Amino acid sequence: MQLKRVAIFGVGLLGGSIGLALRSRGDANLRIVGYGHRKETLQHAQEIGAIDELTQDPATAARGADLIILCTPVGVFDQLIQQIAAELGEHTIVTDVGSTKRSIVAAAAKHFQNRKGHFVGSHPMAGSEKRGVEFARTDLFVGARCIVTPTSQTPAHAQQAVTDFWKSLGMKVTILSPEDHDRLVCEISHLPHAAAAASVAMQNDDALQLAGNGFLDTTRVAGGDGGLWRDIFQDNRDNVADSIRRLREKLDEFLALLDPQKRDELAKWLDEAARRRAKLVSEKLKEMQG
Amino acid sequence: MQLKRVAIFGVGLLGGSIGLALRSRGDANLRIVGYGHRKETLQHAQEIGAIDELTQDPATAARGADLIILCTPVGVFDQLIQQIAAELGEHTIVTDVGSTKRSIVAAAAKHFQNRKGHFVGSHPMAGSEKRGVEFARTDLFVGARCIVTPTSQTPAHAQQAVTDFWKSLGMKVTILSPEDHDRLVCEISHLPHAAAAASVAMQNDDALQLAGNGFLDTTRVAGGDGGLWRDIFQDNRDNVADSIRRLREKLDEFLALLDPQKRDELAKWLDEAARRRAKLVSEKLKEMQG
Repeated sequence: MQLKRVAIFGVGLLGGSIGLALRSRGDANLRIVGYGHRKETLQHAQEIGAIDELTQDPATAARGADLIILCTPVGVFDQLIQQIAAELGEHTIVTDVGSTKRSIVAAAAKHFQNRKGHFVGSHPMAGSEKRGVEFARTDLFVGARCIVTPTSQTPAHAQQAVTDFWKSLGMKVTILSPEDHDRLVCEISHLPHAAAAASVAMQNDDALQLAGNGFLDTTRVAGGDGGLWRDIFQDNRDNVADSIRRLREKLDEFLALLDPQKRDELAKWLDEAARRRAKLVSEKLKEMQG
Repeated sequence: MQLKRVAIFGVGLLGGSIGLALRSRGDANLRIVGYGHRKETLQHAQEIGAIDELTQDPATAARGADLIILCTPVGVFDQLIQQIAAELGEHTIVTDVGSTKRSIVAAAAKHFQNRKGHFVGSHPMAGSEKRGVEFARTDLFVGARCIVTPTSQTPAHAQQAVTDFWKSLGMKVTILSPEDHDRLVCEISHLPHAAAAASVAMQNDDALQLAGNGFLDTTRVAGGDGGLWRDIFQDNRDNVADSIRRLREKLDEFLALLDPQKRDELAKWLDEAARRRAKLVSEKLKEMQG
């Protein structure tokens, strides 16, 4: 797909980095338009070369775009989708960068019904606890994984276009249904965030003073923005609740092994967790080298 | 205290690093003797200059030492203390590097009763999930914190000697009772380890394949040796069980906030955890700079 006009909705860390990465290809025919609700942010994005044009009107941003990428907080997706639905052309592809996929895919199916264009959900797993266009980087996506979430209604060419787009930014693409995405990403990302936040919340101040690098590593993910994560947790709350229940079961299993009679079982349980983690680390290293 | 003879029991990462740090002072009159149950490890420690002499007999190692440092796994402390009790001189100071303090302090009080010498518990919070003398480093302790745990029975000069010793290795010393130590370190270290291990244990293989750096950071502490951590968890099981109960309460609090009606409260709860962690990071930075 030869992109002539890309609209980036929300030019923060992810949206800004997408713009920089697109621009770094040196394609003189490509126009990148940025939409946002704060003019200063849009101007900043324009200054660093992440976007060519800026607008605070969703319909204006969407009009004539080949590719629209929603990078705003998940909480405003539904509204934006309604605002741009009438502007989609025959070949317009819409995707997003949200951390949950079922609700956005369902909202797009509803509002884009009987409209032109196609929505295919994406979740590029890049970024950090930092926010804002000032942290945008041309290489933010290189080597990271992007999950693309087609449904049975998604035309093959639309899935392919979105897959090709993320690959062109250097990402490895995994295809999952929106349901599988939300379940698996909850385990690997949403649950660890909730557990880290709870681990900080339960601490007394006198304990926190003794914290070292281990504790800071363990709780790094809890440094993210509360409002953004609130949207993710509430949107994915069935999976979040289920995985917390399963974490509690594992903690109960562990508690039962504190019995001095269970010396061998406890060591084995801990070694098994260490082994699974070590296996994961070595797979990641291989993936990075390959 | 002018050290003439130091006995290091267990020359792994911590014991080996203590030897290297002591040796790096260039004190020609200091003899460092290493005790261990594996001869190859002792020989390796001698080759890298961490110890001058080696022995596989605890009594021989302890005899004539001004300072004895127990660096073996916590599980064998009780036995070692019995084996060396008769060898202590009038001025011998015994300390350790164990991650729990109540049981070792109680064992020392029992077996050293009516003996010469004094025991003062220590917990140098340095090291990593790596094990073995091959990872020993002269500067392992520099800038890290050591908790020293005297009791009402500890003579002031013994507490001072142990405090001075860790400070001479570049550590910051905090004085806590053995009880406070075990309670606070459980919160900040043992609980995060248990939660990380449980977070790995609950994962399905298909979720693990999607794991990124966030998950690897969160679970880094779970990479440690199962046998060592089994000893720590079982030794501190009352505190561990209590802190897991408190973590569960926080997870329940979080679960209740997934209710869509509680948008503001959930964001506030998450922001508060992020704020406490950010405060901790800035305090650590200041501490490192000061």
